[in-house]
Amino acid sequence: MTEPTPLAAIILAAGQGTRMKSDTHKVLHPIAGKPMLGHLIDAVQTLGAERSVIVAGARREQIEAFVEPLGLTVALQAEQLGTAHAVLQAKAALAGFDGNVLILYGDVPLVTRETMARMIDRLEAADTPAIVVLGFRPPDPLAYGRIVAEGDRIVKMVEFKDATPQERAIDLCNSGLMAARAADLWPLLERVGNANAAGEYYLPDIVMLAAEEGKASAVIETDPAEVAGVNSRAELAEVEAGWQRQRRAAAMADGATLLAPDTVWFAADTRIGRDVTIGQNVVFGPGVVIADGVTIHAFSHIEGATVASGAIIGPYARLRPGAEVGANAHVGNFVEIKKAKLGEGAKANHLTYIGDAEIGPGTNIGAGTITCNYDGFGKYLTRIGARAFIGSNSALVAPVTIGDGAIVAAGSVVVRDVAPDALVVARGAQEEKPGWAARFRARHKKS
Amino acid sequence: MTEPTPLAAIILAAGQGTRMKSDTHKVLHPIAGKPMLGHLIDAVQTLGAERSVIVAGARREQIEAFVEPLGLTVALQAEQLGTAHAVLQAKAALAGFDGNVLILYGDVPLVTRETMARMIDRLEAADTPAIVVLGFRPPDPLAYGRIVAEGDRIVKMVEFKDATPQERAIDLCNSGLMAARAADLWPLLERVGNANAAGEYYLPDIVMLAAEEGKASAVIETDPAEVAGVNSRAELAEVEAGWQRQRRAAAMADGATLLAPDTVWFAADTRIGRDVTIGQNVVFGPGVVIADGVTIHAFSHIEGATVASGAIIGPYARLRPGAEVGANAHVGNFVEIKKAKLGEGAKANHLTYIGDAEIGPGTNIGAGTITCNYDGFGKYLTRIGARAFIGSNSALVAPVTIGDGAIVAAGSVVVRDVAPDALVVARGAQEEKPGWAARFRARHKKS
Amino acid sequence: MTEPTPLAAIILAAGQGTRMKSDTHKVLHPIAGKPMLGHLIDAVQTLGAERSVIVAGARREQIEAFVEPLGLTVALQAEQLGTAHAVLQAKAALAGFDGNVLILYGDVPLVTRETMARMIDRLEAADTPAIVVLGFRPPDPLAYGRIVAEGDRIVKMVEFKDATPQERAIDLCNSGLMAARAADLWPLLERVGNANAAGEYYLPDIVMLAAEEGKASAVIETDPAEVAGVNSRAELAEVEAGWQRQRRAAAMADGATLLAPDTVWFAADTRIGRDVTIGQNVVFGPGVVIADGVTIHAFSHIEGATVASGAIIGPYARLRPGAEVGANAHVGNFVEIKKAKLGEGAKANHLTYIGDAEIGPGTNIGAGTITCNYDGFGKYLTRIGARAFIGSNSALVAPVTIGDGAIVAAGSVVVRDVAPDALVVARGAQEEKPGWAARFRARHKKS
Repeated sequence: MTEPTPLAAIILAAGQGTRMKSDTHKVLHPIAGKPMLGHLIDAVQTLGAERSVIVAGARREQIEAFVEPLGLTVALQAEQLGTAHAVLQAKAALAGFDGNVLILYGDVPLVTRETMARMIDRLEAADTPAIVVLGFRPPDPLAYGRIVAEGDRIVKMVEFKDATPQERAIDLCNSGLMAARAADLWPLLERVGNANAAGEYYLPDIVMLAAEEGKASAVIETDPAEVAGVNSRAELAEVEAGWQRQRRAAAMADGATLLAPDTVWFAADTRIGRDVTIGQNVVFGPGVVIADGVTIHAFSHIEGATVASGAIIGPYARLRPGAEVGANAHVGNFVEIKKAKLGEGAKANHLTYIGDAEIGPGTNIGAGTITCNYDGFGKYLTRIGARAFIGSNSALVAPVTIGDGAIVAAGSVVVRDVAPDALVVARGAQEEKPGWAARFRARHKKS
Repeated sequence: MTEPTPLAAIILAAGQGTRMKSDTHKVLHPIAGKPMLGHLIDAVQTLGAERSVIVAGARREQIEAFVEPLGLTVALQAEQLGTAHAVLQAKAALAGFDGNVLILYGDVPLVTRETMARMIDRLEAADTPAIVVLGFRPPDPLAYGRIVAEGDRIVKMVEFKDATPQERAIDLCNSGLMAARAADLWPLLERVGNANAAGEYYLPDIVMLAAEEGKASAVIETDPAEVAGVNSRAELAEVEAGWQRQRRAAAMADGATLLAPDTVWFAADTRIGRDVTIGQNVVFGPGVVIADGVTIHAFSHIEGATVASGAIIGPYARLRPGAEVGANAHVGNFVEIKKAKLGEGAKANHLTYIGDAEIGPGTNIGAGTITCNYDGFGKYLTRIGARAFIGSNSALVAPVTIGDGAIVAAGSVVVRDVAPDALVVARGAQEEKPGWAARFRARHKKS
Repeated sequence: MTEPTPLAAIILAAGQGTRMKSDTHKVLHPIAGKPMLGHLIDAVQTLGAERSVIVAGARREQIEAFVEPLGLTVALQAEQLGTAHAVLQAKAALAGFDGNVLILYGDVPLVTRETMARMIDRLEAADTPAIVVLGFRPPDPLAYGRIVAEGDRIVKMVEFKDATPQERAIDLCNSGLMAARAADLWPLLERVGNANAAGEYYLPDIVMLAAEEGKASAVIETDPAEVAGVNSRAELAEVEAGWQRQRRAAAMADGATLLAPDTVWFAADTRIGRDVTIGQNVVFGPGVVIADGVTIHAFSHIEGATVASGAIIGPYARLRPGAEVGANAHVGNFVEIKKAKLGEGAKANHLTYIGDAEIGPGTNIGAGTITCNYDGFGKYLTRIGARAFIGSNSALVAPVTIGDGAIVAAGSVVVRDVAPDALVVARGAQEEKPGWAARFRARHKKS
């Protein structure tokens, strides 16, 4: 078995993003809860890219803060002199790299790993094209650059404004994404000139420069939706919507019922089992794993949580990071669970806050129960054993442990540990003042 | 007046439903909260069918569990040998029946009673067709079997794969639904052969066999949406969406305002009055009756509840089975009501759980009130009289009765009955430790 | 600078609105939370109309109750004799008025101020047209009256049923909206006859009557969506949807991210800053101002509230009128805030009701806290200082003041003021009954 050719990725992210009207760098705006740039980085890392360089200009520090923890490099394009110039700024960061290079765009976030792999495969095919260009056929080609091709061999790359009427009639458009060998790429880029109306160094020119050297290039095609770019918040919303549509279809194909698919929002990493039913208006944040046979009722909001098989969630349940809901457990309406385990078959069905807690199997948490986990400085743990019964409207002041089988009387404020099988009562005595209410009303009615 | 001809229905439900990827039988997946099979059973029962037979194969026990309580019969199709064979499996169960037979499909759930009645009427018309076939003209006829007809007289039924180009150009397609007299049906079915590529016994063949005997058959047409079949979760979602669209239009035509119709989900039996306003994102489960002039605000979830005229519900109100909301009563945000009556003009506006309770007219339930109705074994009743005032954050430990006009002080835990017009206070005494908080903070800041 | 010509508006609102099936007058049904009539009144008032007359018939008293507080006049059309007759009913109310008159329709609510201004400008142009008619080109012109024009000069106004095939082929349709000088309008209206099949006085006839006097009229065009009329609840929903689509696009263009634009509903006066993120399913009622950099999570419901920069709202947050959320403050899940200020950086994150309160900067409101602001008669104020800490599940019985830096122990019911920096504890003592729970269960299991 031969070693695969090394792979590097260059992701262009130096655009101003003015139409976003945002203080956040355009490529850091999220799709499915993950920055656009993150989608591309994930794809190239899964493909095994050994080096990735982000070319950034304005707000470079935001890009650095995002990618440096991931071990990637940021190269500066100080002036915006065109896409060929932008790619060339990555050369220093890739010094010594001698393999295949993918050129991607931070604001074209949904290109799949499969498409990238097809580009590399084509580059490595027996006829060794100099450049592989990713093309697409949009319903309305507008002002995209056109690709004149014979079969998959590129005859000409032409900007829309320089195109003849015959060339404009071609619907095969240039997405801008390319693959090339580093050894070919750098010399070609250095030969690109800027003798055009805009005075810019255009990346597609490398295809024609290679042709002048007798090296053919190839085009492969993909779905227009995959190369949709984001230049405004409206386009961000459209790309998000397209992503969600695909994800919903995949969830249904895998055996989940979505009662109203248009109202379920997944995150990039959501995992959903088989025979899961998801009601109307359910939002998944990052880090969710839902096992088989779970029912999630309407208006639930779930992030960073795992839900075991047969559990019932919602309506109006909020699971926050660290929530672990056991098999056949119930989390009901207006209940929030954060960094807490709910044991198998346990129930917290109404108006409850459970934070920093471990709750044993079969335990029932009454309506209105609150774990008081915070004292203004630290967070403390509430431990409740198995088959315990927490009466309604109780406050459990952490750190506190309630033993297996214990009962907390309704309305109690529990401040000390409770032994297994004990009853604890911690509330005021009931006093009645006969007729007081009638007198109170009479007084108010007079005044 | 002549007695109507007896009617029987055969509902085919022996498909594997593999594409659903579910442990639940396909025809038991719900549309509008009711199993698909249930929609068909309701329709044929309303039409007066005296006998109904479900033909099932795999997972027959699930079908039996659903239909036997309704008094219907399940016939077994042990092997999947084709639709004619499937219908024939119902013969024994219909022994002695001598009337009209409707042949339906468990995964074609939305055929209306009106369409079924049209099929029967056509069967009983003066020219006594042998078979009445339900046809439709889909926008894209794809691979459906075609019906060659002159007027409504069927000349030929042809499978797509056997059709000539001219026949394929016909857009009148066979839904598979048929009506026939029992006396005609059984002999024809027994003559159907399986000398075709798939080796299957095809139901449409009975039309051609009848024609050979000189008996004409007739086609009647219906809307393609009505005969949409469900083979996957995506199709289930589409049929659900189509059902909801129709139901929303009907609600608006009847005089309800839907602020955002696409975000209101009805159940099969939801009843809505006139001048009802329904906000964004409202979900109705089964068994809901809403009177005239009710306002339902956004994010409400209502099932098994009745709401009297002029009441105001939500936002974020959850009415569960057995909730009865009186005229002009208010149920506000984060309030759950289960198996409880809220009297005329009573209010429960904030963060409250009312379960197993009767609340008198004009009573005000303060924010955060919880009825503690469960002790881990039984459920107990809370009775609150008229014009009472329940202070905020109170817990009412059932069984308990609070008299007319009584006042419960805020934060009380009420464990014994309260007399009419009395004030009850049941909370701890307030003690203050001056400067304690400042010392606590100083200690934490040092550490 | 010359004084602008005085402007008056006549808004026709005498239709029966039968298809609405409502006890509310059709033009009082809301779009974006504001009655249709209110949209028109706002537009003409912004244009500087000095007099406005609503022509009403049935349910005139509802119109009067709405417009009289705004200083507008209602004229009665006792019998429905046609649109020309309706406009004429406004003559007495406009006695002495000698300027430009706009004729509008109460059920055509979304005509913009800009379009109205274009109509007036055209009326005042050098060629002084007698009448300016607002035309539109619908995708399917149906039975609308057609406008035969040469350039913008009107040759003929023709009802669909009187139109020749050639005229029916014209797609320029009459919206019914017109502008005219009062001095021209009244004499023309008085000359309109009713010698037609319906026996009605048709407003478009004034254009032809002016032409007979040698006075030309002009048509200006607008977008069909702008002149969409509302005759049923379904059309009300469509017009609402169209309004919301435009408003969402505007919010995105101004620099807000809408994670799922189709699920955000604005009110007519909602103001949203830059770099605001709005999650799925957010409803804005009237009177909301959201500053820059605010995050609003899913399932939030906001009306009459101001939210300062950097604040985080929701999910499941309800802000009601008078809520003022300070900079960088947090309002979390199942929290309702009404007529209350939350200071800078303060937090109320879980299951809380804050009504009639002032909360200082940096204060933390624990989960399940309830301000008890109502005693059945009056509403009372809760004042909490800066950097205070309200323990979970506390009830604060207003009127009450809690000083800066004070701590309320979890589960307390606070009925008296608390000094700054003090700790207050107001809850029952904890008592334990060993083994009681085990005996209780044993008893139940036996029975």
